[in-house]
Amino acid sequence: MQTGGTNERLYTFTAAATGDWHITAIHRVVGEPLRSAARLSVRPGIAAADGAVWMLRGVVSNDRYVTRAEKERLAAIQEGLGRDEATHAALIPIRKNAAWWQLTQDERRRVFEERSRHVALGLAYLPAIARRLHHCRDLAISEPFDFLTWFEFAPAHADAFEELLGRLRATEEWQYVEREVDIRLRRE
Amino acid sequence: MQTGGTNERLYTFTAAATGDWHITAIHRVVGEPLRSAARLSVRPGIAAADGAVWMLRGVVSNDRYVTRAEKERLAAIQEGLGRDEATHAALIPIRKNAAWWQLTQDERRRVFEERSRHVALGLAYLPAIARRLHHCRDLAISEPFDFLTWFEFAPAHADAFEELLGRLRATEEWQYVEREVDIRLRRE
Repeated sequence: MQTGGTNERLYTFTAAATGDWHITAIHRVVGEPLRSAARLSVRPGIAAADGAVWMLRGVVSNDRYVTRAEKERLAAIQEGLGRDEATHAALIPIRKNAAWWQLTQDERRRVFEERSRHVALGLAYLPAIARRLHHCRDLAISEPFDFLTWFEFAPAHADAFEELLGRLRATEEWQYVEREVDIRLRRE
Repeated sequence: MQTGGTNERLYTFTAAATGDWHITAIHRVVGEPLRSAARLSVRPGIAAADGAVWMLRGVVSNDRYVTRAEKERLAAIQEGLGRDEATHAALIPIRKNAAWWQLTQDERRRVFEERSRHVALGLAYLPAIARRLHHCRDLAISEPFDFLTWFEFAPAHADAFEELLGRLRATEEWQYVEREVDIRLRRE
């Protein structure tokens, strides 16, 4: 019988005693916190759980809200992960409430962009803040969050990153967030 | 360390020697076929693979394209699975090509509804044809298809079901389908 391999768009975030990134802070924004740990590793695939304090998994997927025009504006200026100068990172897992998931596509788009300016806000902080979004809600094994967003930036852009988060958290879209943890990281 | 249970929106379709549904035909529409088998079972969760000829898994998720107005029109007349008279069923797994997944949301919506009338077509065959859509593309273990659609109907509506499929397969949306198998089933 055929059995599939691991989805090549899947990533595992493992908090443990070892890992490439030092965890400098874990801050509960809303809902249940996550346990503290020394380090975080980010690996493609289903990483082993040996010694993990916690593990979060998510899949990079197709765009759900951006229009072609928005995607082209983003693509023209965004930069990738792994830049030498981007020694600061943040992992921000969020879960949205049932009311969000009961909205239809047109309603979610209106909250997401027409009223919360999610894409426009992110665009204002490019190329300084690089990001990758992972979806967790539809995995076969239940995950505690719906989305994991990974951000990377240089120390010089740390204040800009705080400002971006503050503006996003003040939006109508964030009223649907029922759990959010903010994990900050550094590498040498 | 916390580990999640099975996603309660996950279903497994197992083709084997036993199962609630008799497989009456497996027809390759486009792309690689699926092996023939006598019976199919449909179970919530990650079913055991003992004796399976093949297994397909998918998750029921939030609506991706319908607007509030469309959802209300659907909800007003659709009926659920498991009706006594609905002794015919079809499982239609499809995979869409890379070009589809590179489209943005506004472009996919235009193909899906404004040009292919996917929702409007389905609506014309309600409440006779009941359906449930399962998403497979973003599971951690790669699935051979992107979507599994399960249909149930009474024998009296078998011709209507053929007509619906014919109309859907003639749409612009179906030009993005690179693999499709059509599995027909009956129960006593």
